[in-house]
Amino acid sequence: MKPDESRYDRGLASMRAIFGSGIEPALDALATTSPDLVRSLIEFPFGDIYTRPGLDLKTREMLTVAALTVLGYAQAELKEHIRGAMNVGCTRNEILEIILQMAVYAGFPAALEAIKTAASVFGEE
Amino acid sequence: MKPDESRYDRGLASMRAIFGSGIEPALDALATTSPDLVRSLIEFPFGDIYTRPGLDLKTREMLTVAALTVLGYAQAELKEHIRGAMNVGCTRNEILEIILQMAVYAGFPAALEAIKTAASVFGEE
Amino acid sequence: MKPDESRYDRGLASMRAIFGSGIEPALDALATTSPDLVRSLIEFPFGDIYTRPGLDLKTREMLTVAALTVLGYAQAELKEHIRGAMNVGCTRNEILEIILQMAVYAGFPAALEAIKTAASVFGEE
Amino acid sequence: MKPDESRYDRGLASMRAIFGSGIEPALDALATTSPDLVRSLIEFPFGDIYTRPGLDLKTREMLTVAALTVLGYAQAELKEHIRGAMNVGCTRNEILEIILQMAVYAGFPAALEAIKTAASVFGEE
Amino acid sequence: MKPDESRYDRGLASMRAIFGSGIEPALDALATTSPDLVRSLIEFPFGDIYTRPGLDLKTREMLTVAALTVLGYAQAELKEHIRGAMNVGCTRNEILEIILQMAVYAGFPAALEAIKTAASVFGEE
Amino acid sequence: MKPDESRYDRGLASMRAIFGSGIEPALDALATTSPDLVRSLIEFPFGDIYTRPGLDLKTREMLTVAALTVLGYAQAELKEHIRGAMNVGCTRNEILEIILQMAVYAGFPAALEAIKTAASVFGEE
Repeated sequence: MKPDESRYDRGLASMRAIFGSGIEPALDALATTSPDLVRSLIEFPFGDIYTRPGLDLKTREMLTVAALTVLGYAQAELKEHIRGAMNVGCTRNEILEIILQMAVYAGFPAALEAIKTAASVFGEE
Repeated sequence: MKPDESRYDRGLASMRAIFGSGIEPALDALATTSPDLVRSLIEFPFGDIYTRPGLDLKTREMLTVAALTVLGYAQAELKEHIRGAMNVGCTRNEILEIILQMAVYAGFPAALEAIKTAASVFGEE
Repeated sequence: MKPDESRYDRGLASMRAIFGSGIEPALDALATTSPDLVRSLIEFPFGDIYTRPGLDLKTREMLTVAALTVLGYAQAELKEHIRGAMNVGCTRNEILEIILQMAVYAGFPAALEAIKTAASVFGEE
Repeated sequence: MKPDESRYDRGLASMRAIFGSGIEPALDALATTSPDLVRSLIEFPFGDIYTRPGLDLKTREMLTVAALTVLGYAQAELKEHIRGAMNVGCTRNEILEIILQMAVYAGFPAALEAIKTAASVFGEE
Repeated sequence: MKPDESRYDRGLASMRAIFGSGIEPALDALATTSPDLVRSLIEFPFGDIYTRPGLDLKTREMLTVAALTVLGYAQAELKEHIRGAMNVGCTRNEILEIILQMAVYAGFPAALEAIKTAASVFGEE
Repeated sequence: MKPDESRYDRGLASMRAIFGSGIEPALDALATTSPDLVRSLIEFPFGDIYTRPGLDLKTREMLTVAALTVLGYAQAELKEHIRGAMNVGCTRNEILEIILQMAVYAGFPAALEAIKTAASVFGEE
């Protein structure tokens, strides 16, 4: 997989816009184990998908909070994306509404796990 | 579980707004097997959750399309909600963007199954 | 994996008790593709687990109906186990209660898929 | 979502019967983040579903232990429900049988995670 | 997302090597609904990942058969990849061993669904 | 479930070959809670499945690393199996390739959780 500077640069800019500049040391730490997963993460989701014009960034982050609530096991990623969603314009109340709605589609345990994660994000602010 | 007419009525109105009046015979058919699941479905998701003010109906339907794409096994429900999302203002392009984004969070098989379901909805219009 | 006649015989007897004697042609058909999966299925779940004294057969089948409702994708197995549960003493109403309760833990799409499967079993009787 | 005192009261009584009175401070803590998820949790699963006559409380808790073992990611909820199941009459041995049986339906990793959770509950008694 | 001809060409060549030239009409059909998901599918999994030197193609296909068996809901994709695995050197027996092993990690229903899919592929040859 | 010494002995030998002799105190600890789950674990996956001739041990461990990455919630088991895979001949690079490939089938959150687990194993060596 040869580096593709424009996808990479676009993806990193997109990650900074969502997660803040604190994302770079986190990516660097992960890259000491798997530089290629980090590159794929930057290029495909954030370089290719999040930069597409069909949905605004706030809507994309809301969809991701829904998806991670449904998965249930990825609370570390959910934590980052709750922060990210708020950085791009989501209110706390919108986060809570998304999680509450997911109780319908993935059950109450999924919603309860996500609310605890949201509480830990809100508590750090 | 005693009927609660206002939750029930509110939920049924909300389901009609999303799915059209064709939803009623479908609910009646399901109710011959499980009237209580149908009542719970009308009252809790559609009476309690979808009618809350914190998110508009289009956003709620977009979140549901994301959630059902992630689950993977619920293509029948996804089909209804793709129709529902379009009834409340979602464009075909927005549906496709949501599904494409879910490839990131739930993998390509989830996205491929959902695209085939979207194609069947689009083809029926 | 050498055959272990007592586990195999015990498992087959247990499957007949749950599913009726119609299970044998179904197992034979599956065994033309994978005799070893069929042997494992007979010996481990039905020879080792279902024959244990700690829970009665009706309770075990009720737990399995719950588990398969949660998984969501295994409607063919759920169909067999709804029949099996009724063969060992479960009422239709108990099946419906289990599925309704699973809406809480795995969401409404899981419950809706399972109700449709239950309806098809009930309709065949 | 307007409060419905009878569903709420019935649900809270049902939660106390299952989890003991220690559940109230836990619900209060969660309600500082999402009062509406807590209300939904009390009203829908515990007010509407667990109070239905079709299955006794012990059977319902056994089904829930099965469901949470299958989900895998919800060990915090499983911990509460193992305690709850024992409060309403389940023996340790029955809990262990349920988890062992789930190895058949959700695989050994699901059963191993659940056994570790059961061990931590048993160790606290 | 601007086309990247080398990733695209490399991915398409990789898909032809795995699935045979019959994959192109299937991709074209899917592309009438979502050209961008098809492009992402060709470029990211097959252009970027399957062409990496760290694992040979047969091993990659075996891992994918395992992954799709675990997911459970993606039998259409599993069908393609069972064919693909055999095209790149997997024997029928190896496919069956993978599926049998997955009974340990995802449960018997996942393995049974996958065996039925394998049987339908073997039967078409 | 009566003990079957040959399956048990074969399974324990297989577990020692994969995980090293440190696995025995871990199994003993688990067996204080559930001796029967431990026996089933030794006999069925490791006595029956891993000892089958159709796939070598290294391939089996690679498939298991893929499966556990897809499940997402079983990081404790993944940790053991990453160690196990390396004990039977997998390189660090092969582990990382498997996890990267799983981003395609189960999404990036599954791959990110698994990479963090791999990093913790690599860091302990």
